[in-house]
Amino acid sequence: MREIHERDLEFLSIGAAILGTGGGGDPLIGKLMAQSAIREEGPVILLDPEEVGDDMFVLPASMMGAPTVMIEKIPAGDEALHAFRAAEQRLGRRADATCPSESGGVNSMIPFVVAARARIPVIDGDGMGRAFPELQMETFHVYGLSGTPAILADEHGSIVMIDANDHYRLEWLARGVTIRMGGHAHIVDYPMSGADFKRTAVRGTISMGIAVGEAVKSAPRRGIHPVEAIAEATQQTIYGRAVRLFEGKVVDVVRRTEAGFAVGQAVLSGIGTDVGRVMEVRFQNENLAAILDGKVVASVPDLITLVDSETGFAITTERIRYGQRAVVIGIPTPEIMRTKEALDVWGPRAFGLQMDFVPLEVTYRSYYLQYGVPKEKEKYLR
Amino acid sequence: MREIHERDLEFLSIGAAILGTGGGGDPLIGKLMAQSAIREEGPVILLDPEEVGDDMFVLPASMMGAPTVMIEKIPAGDEALHAFRAAEQRLGRRADATCPSESGGVNSMIPFVVAARARIPVIDGDGMGRAFPELQMETFHVYGLSGTPAILADEHGSIVMIDANDHYRLEWLARGVTIRMGGHAHIVDYPMSGADFKRTAVRGTISMGIAVGEAVKSAPRRGIHPVEAIAEATQQTIYGRAVRLFEGKVVDVVRRTEAGFAVGQAVLSGIGTDVGRVMEVRFQNENLAAILDGKVVASVPDLITLVDSETGFAITTERIRYGQRAVVIGIPTPEIMRTKEALDVWGPRAFGLQMDFVPLEVTYRSYYLQYGVPKEKEKYLR
Repeated sequence: MREIHERDLEFLSIGAAILGTGGGGDPLIGKLMAQSAIREEGPVILLDPEEVGDDMFVLPASMMGAPTVMIEKIPAGDEALHAFRAAEQRLGRRADATCPSESGGVNSMIPFVVAARARIPVIDGDGMGRAFPELQMETFHVYGLSGTPAILADEHGSIVMIDANDHYRLEWLARGVTIRMGGHAHIVDYPMSGADFKRTAVRGTISMGIAVGEAVKSAPRRGIHPVEAIAEATQQTIYGRAVRLFEGKVVDVVRRTEAGFAVGQAVLSGIGTDVGRVMEVRFQNENLAAILDGKVVASVPDLITLVDSETGFAITTERIRYGQRAVVIGIPTPEIMRTKEALDVWGPRAFGLQMDFVPLEVTYRSYYLQYGVPKEKEKYLR
Repeated sequence: MREIHERDLEFLSIGAAILGTGGGGDPLIGKLMAQSAIREEGPVILLDPEEVGDDMFVLPASMMGAPTVMIEKIPAGDEALHAFRAAEQRLGRRADATCPSESGGVNSMIPFVVAARARIPVIDGDGMGRAFPELQMETFHVYGLSGTPAILADEHGSIVMIDANDHYRLEWLARGVTIRMGGHAHIVDYPMSGADFKRTAVRGTISMGIAVGEAVKSAPRRGIHPVEAIAEATQQTIYGRAVRLFEGKVVDVVRRTEAGFAVGQAVLSGIGTDVGRVMEVRFQNENLAAILDGKVVASVPDLITLVDSETGFAITTERIRYGQRAVVIGIPTPEIMRTKEALDVWGPRAFGLQMDFVPLEVTYRSYYLQYGVPKEKEKYLR
């Protein structure tokens, strides 16, 4: 248990954007909403999953929609609480805690907006361990929880509650509602018990996001490159150490909004030690694959993030611009996200990519032999 | 109070299609669903509005969606009951009765499917007095009832409940959900008390539909033209006597699906006494305006229906075909549908037509001087 203050959210906004792998919405918007909530209501308690009672009632709080839309339409913070209260009312029970469904800019922050206003704790963990574009792409789904009833709310006070037999159908219906709600909506889904959370969530993602953000922010003071700081900060987590994949200049970016998603790819031309090489990064809201000179070096669900060459700040897919200088980094996902049932839901083929998932620990074997991996990942190095 | 049997639904399917003014879905589908329900469960009680207790809980049961889609995708009857039960559960109360939201093929029948299965009565009246394409186009809306919570259900068992601050927003969200549900959905909206129903509904539309259908069906036996039979059957209702507007052959029909609606127009070239004249009928799911040689002779909310020249059966907008011979008839709407607040919602301009509503009693003054009008419409003939 620890208290989360405005300053922690400053770090979290930086770190969660890196975990967001290019997606999850602009971190600035969410941060401002959450900081203003904490300023007015006081700090929020962050619970370690181990501290969560089995019979606690946990309601994840998120936003749904295309980040490209969200930039132009900044939501008011009180809508998050309104949606949360509407969900509680329809579920007939007050929540004991909230949590993020994903790690990423906006959606790492929304739970703090709600928690501050509702005066409940946030649990340190989420259902994606990164950002993903669809509602069934959650460990909560993969490991058998029900996503419904799901409650969506817009800024006009409209509330839509969805019950569906499967989560692909839920995603389909909720996406349609989100589009009609103006491109984004507040959503509360996967209502669950504390025991369910502990069994299914990717743990420690909020404290990891704060640590990564703090590392990036303090790197100049410590005289190290921010990418090195990110590598250090991830080393001792269940993810494992971040690896630098490429450094280059953005020479092409294609981005279109397709069925509510920001879909496209960015091409980087190498600089520094990567001169003469080309990296293509494909995305659907989040980065899905990093292709170096035609060879896939990282793929979903491993994390692929473009960070600014100077500051180490993440560049979200909707902010990629021609001429930017970026380092592309990879972070291995925890093993809970790499089981067969998990890869069926969010492996490369679930996004229509004709490739199998290959763990970063395999592609960058010598790097991980040098720096080591978490115990449950040692199998990759044998 | 009277019992409704399979045979009554045979008549109602014919009559309601005429009241449906070209919309409301194919009557055949609804009829088969309702007849099978009555065959299995027994006859349904039809309550006169005067017999409805003020504190009865009334839930209108309908289908939403584009008729053109419904032809290819015939719904199973038990979904109507499933949707109704889901609505009751979410509203926390069992319904004492159901009613149609509109008069028209499918939607005159759905309440009988539900009523037979749930063993509750149907009330003789509805919220449109004809068919209309949108959820706010109901007397229930015009006269102040709340349309929400509205519950939609699809054939996969998905349930979506919508709360919205206004009925245009409700329509917008529900239409989006309906599209995602495959083009049509079961919907329960405007939950109301018996007192509310009596204050706001267009009364007697079911028994009128049955009478009109019976008149059409028995016309050959009586040796009169079915259009004459329709005129007779409507004479003593709160609508007033149907008037023959035109007889012609369909020479052109343009129909497209736009935002979930079947939108377009049909052009008829005159035959018989109308040789040399042309009538254009514009529609959006339902017929909106009849234009004779460039002059508007009938407009929404008055009823405009194409009926087969031989049989008198209604031709729905999605069934209009090149070469068909049809009589275009008009039926004046009751006064409850012609108030200023009503015309704001469903007058010609609400559909984007650049014309004011002119009552049939005014355009066909000499006809109505000859045959007479209901007492509350005598003002038009002064």
